[in-house]
Amino acid sequence: MAGDSRHSERAERAAVAALTDSFVAGLCEWIRIPSIGVEPTHHVDVRRSAEWLAKELQQDGWPEVEIWGDGPTLPAVFACWPAADPQAPTVLVYGHHDVQPVDPVERWEHPPFEPVISGDEIRGRGASDDKGQVAMHLLAVKAHLAATGQNAPSVTVKLFVEGEEESGSPHLRKLLEDHRNRLGCDLVVFTDTALHQRDAPTITTGQRGVLGAEITFTGGTDDVHSGRAGGAIPNPATALAKLIAALHDDDNRIQLEGFYDDVREPSTKEREDYAALPFDEREWLARNGGGAQETSGETGYSTFERIWVRPTAEVNGISSGYTGPGLKTIIPASATAKISFRLVPDQHPHKVKDQLERFVAQHTPEGIRAEVSLRGEGVPPYAISPDDPANDAVRTAMELAFDQPVRFARAGGSGPAAVLQQFLGVPLVYLGATLPDDRVHAPNERVVVPLLLKGAEAAAHLWRMLAEADIAKRLSR
Amino acid sequence: MAGDSRHSERAERAAVAALTDSFVAGLCEWIRIPSIGVEPTHHVDVRRSAEWLAKELQQDGWPEVEIWGDGPTLPAVFACWPAADPQAPTVLVYGHHDVQPVDPVERWEHPPFEPVISGDEIRGRGASDDKGQVAMHLLAVKAHLAATGQNAPSVTVKLFVEGEEESGSPHLRKLLEDHRNRLGCDLVVFTDTALHQRDAPTITTGQRGVLGAEITFTGGTDDVHSGRAGGAIPNPATALAKLIAALHDDDNRIQLEGFYDDVREPSTKEREDYAALPFDEREWLARNGGGAQETSGETGYSTFERIWVRPTAEVNGISSGYTGPGLKTIIPASATAKISFRLVPDQHPHKVKDQLERFVAQHTPEGIRAEVSLRGEGVPPYAISPDDPANDAVRTAMELAFDQPVRFARAGGSGPAAVLQQFLGVPLVYLGATLPDDRVHAPNERVVVPLLLKGAEAAAHLWRMLAEADIAKRLSR
Repeated sequence: MAGDSRHSERAERAAVAALTDSFVAGLCEWIRIPSIGVEPTHHVDVRRSAEWLAKELQQDGWPEVEIWGDGPTLPAVFACWPAADPQAPTVLVYGHHDVQPVDPVERWEHPPFEPVISGDEIRGRGASDDKGQVAMHLLAVKAHLAATGQNAPSVTVKLFVEGEEESGSPHLRKLLEDHRNRLGCDLVVFTDTALHQRDAPTITTGQRGVLGAEITFTGGTDDVHSGRAGGAIPNPATALAKLIAALHDDDNRIQLEGFYDDVREPSTKEREDYAALPFDEREWLARNGGGAQETSGETGYSTFERIWVRPTAEVNGISSGYTGPGLKTIIPASATAKISFRLVPDQHPHKVKDQLERFVAQHTPEGIRAEVSLRGEGVPPYAISPDDPANDAVRTAMELAFDQPVRFARAGGSGPAAVLQQFLGVPLVYLGATLPDDRVHAPNERVVVPLLLKGAEAAAHLWRMLAEADIAKRLSR
Repeated sequence: MAGDSRHSERAERAAVAALTDSFVAGLCEWIRIPSIGVEPTHHVDVRRSAEWLAKELQQDGWPEVEIWGDGPTLPAVFACWPAADPQAPTVLVYGHHDVQPVDPVERWEHPPFEPVISGDEIRGRGASDDKGQVAMHLLAVKAHLAATGQNAPSVTVKLFVEGEEESGSPHLRKLLEDHRNRLGCDLVVFTDTALHQRDAPTITTGQRGVLGAEITFTGGTDDVHSGRAGGAIPNPATALAKLIAALHDDDNRIQLEGFYDDVREPSTKEREDYAALPFDEREWLARNGGGAQETSGETGYSTFERIWVRPTAEVNGISSGYTGPGLKTIIPASATAKISFRLVPDQHPHKVKDQLERFVAQHTPEGIRAEVSLRGEGVPPYAISPDDPANDAVRTAMELAFDQPVRFARAGGSGPAAVLQQFLGVPLVYLGATLPDDRVHAPNERVVVPLLLKGAEAAAHLWRMLAEADIAKRLSR
């Protein structure tokens, strides 16, 4: 395989290089469409974005292009380019074309929807998350065809680009069910994750799940002057603080009963891979930790383990009583905390929900009424073994493109990977080429173009390699 | 003395009755002036209120009437009516003429500054707190003169009515110092407290102090997406919750080191007095507890003890991170709690401040920066023994006016009593005749006129009795 690969490597790289200018121009055109899915005034732009993508796919020669979703479901784009060989495997690429809001807009150096090319970067909302990576896969298919001289890809490539990812994919299951007969595949390639860093390319092997809850403790019906009743009635803010304090022990282990029962420990190999990644604490804190002074977390785990393979319970917000200027000596009538749990395989959001409700009941003192409201049903975690044959193929493809060893890592955030994987019943691998410091969800989002080109080259290698008999056989078909 | 008192009782009561109509008319006129001291747009009304009071005193025949305060100090009214006998004791009556804001104004049944007489109540802002009780003392002096047939009171009466009480009396010490030579007295009568209930009249013997603080825990400079760093950096909201949780032990004892060292236990007699007061838990919770479901507090103390003679630490407000609708999975950059301590004799606000700062330092985890900001220097607590000879005189005067036994109680709130007592170096007693459910600081404030009349009668008795040789001698002169 090494000889073939070396030959193809040149061909794919040359094809990508030849297509670069039109790739950049197209991506910039797409970024100009402000497809902010969470803002209803921009729903018309989400539709325009889907239409732009559909037209682009048709121009590229994709034989089947459809726009899905109506009514409450923001438009998703589906496309399929069947392989010449009907026995070839089918790969479904998942991405999204909705983008994050732009607030605080005054902190953007350029208008967010007027993309600017600066050095080797494109700056603009959606450049990295996720239009850049979807465009990267369009480029990959074109480069694959150019490099192989074929007029159809070596594998059947399906593309599914949803418009509601930044809204938490509320209609994803329904979309999948409505179009079950179009989505059959042997492998999902999920393209919405980043490399560890520019000089340390990685392949993501999992994302954490998430479950968000709001807990409200109520004492009376009104705030009370603390001179009248202070010391003689329950204070819901104090009670809620005691509940939050009880969430973690001194080793930062989460105290929900049974919380760790389903947690899968990372393999020795995974821990070794994480330990081998470059890590500078100060730099990591500045880039990822919001300027925090130091790392801290569960005893016995490294920073990467804490954010990738260990579950968390984070207070996202608290509000109670008087919070304006100066002092108001009241006992608040109620106190509310928003708490979210990041989950890891094989935890289930619905089990954690039950554990949380029990924990709250156990920590509700006399005289306080507790209410727990969940934000949806949560997002399940997902992980695939680095040893999975599909990951082998991705690693080989990535190493060909990046000309250096590529390690495995995970992502601390959450996405619909588990939903896709469970619904489709096939392995799901990640192929991403953006960076953690692309300022996604923040002002001045950017993407590094040479990394997208390498990602496209890797995907082009992957399409070719997946058609090779031995890898196809090692996949589930 | 019993014979003399019975005779005088009739005379003072008749005099008060004869003066009632003009008393009610005058009080209503005063309430019409919206002297909201905390609202700068109403500072002109605080001055009008002072001028109204000064003019009223002059019309009543007080020989010395002055308005104090200029620049940042809102106007206070001082008046003095010397006794004919230069050896007679001097009594200084303290009250205030500024009133609370009226928000939420839409919950008032009548406009707050258009007083309405409803049954035996006057309704309007300031009717109870504190214009009604200051007017009660003007009435008392008139009734005393009418009952005794004198043209000067039996004791020298000084009146000091400040305009900044609802603002926390920020310039009180300066006012006292600027006018030290005018304020000499043998006893302070503080008139800004309530009876326990209408059918259970009480004499207040102390008020708690208060110290307010704001504690801010800061992690990084920005909120961080919990997918990026959740589990690996300190969460200031969790850390602050742990600090708050550590404030009280399971018996609701406050855990600041040394906090109870200066706390004076109530005497057996005081505890017996409190236990003898009518108490219905459900009713008390509804009226004083903001509709709380049940009482709770420091183990080993009754509700009255908890609010009168025991110190507290109350969370008044907490804010951190995202508190809008839905979920935002962030680790907040910071978390802030407002905490106030009610203090009892002989605690000192400055000592508690030091104890709090040490406690915060002890409970600030690695990676978190703590900031403690105090709201002013705090208000010291004050209490006088029920056995003090001045209190004996007040009790006798009150029992004559109310025709029933009068017990001792305390107030859970705070006021400038300790500042006055410490500055003037003489005993301070309380003479109040309003009710805890007068809705002071709330919409639809009211005062019960017959109680003010009884309070005026009691004060008139007190002026006469304090001139009697044995009580004067038992006071500090």
